[in-house]
Amino acid sequence: MRAHVYVTLKPGLLDAQGKTIKSALESLGFKGVKEVRVGKYLELDLNHGGTKAAKRDVARMCQKLLANPVVETYQIAIDQR
Amino acid sequence: MRAHVYVTLKPGLLDAQGKTIKSALESLGFKGVKEVRVGKYLELDLNHGGTKAAKRDVARMCQKLLANPVVETYQIAIDQR
Repeated sequence: MRAHVYVTLKPGLLDAQGKTIKSALESLGFKGVKEVRVGKYLELDLNHGGTKAAKRDVARMCQKLLANPVVETYQIAIDQR
Repeated sequence: MRAHVYVTLKPGLLDAQGKTIKSALESLGFKGVKEVRVGKYLELDLNHGGTKAAKRDVARMCQKLLANPVVETYQIAIDQR
């Protein structure tokens, strides 16, 4: 089974990389972009049996390694493949 | 409206960052992780009217700036908010 993890900065925190990308898009002629926020996307292939246990384990991985819980939040989606 | 963009390395290419994360997870005691692949996740707030036009524009942004089409692929999801 596969876990998809989306790690993003907490709302309200300045996303310098996003601001830079927004400026670059504008200078390339793309209008109408109000805001860009950048995060990480991780795909984890797991040997787990159950969705619930997998989600709990991946949440622990996020807390310990994949995200910085002080400034980042994460979302986990489990895919039964 | 909001566009969600997922940029990942093309399948088959070595993901060194992913391999490092996998080793780190193992050394933290997380068993059963077969593979980790790392990508970028971007949220773009757009002024666009139509979903179709927005998706086309975001695809052009990916080709020009957000992804490296030589080694990366991208997926776009449009969210009507």
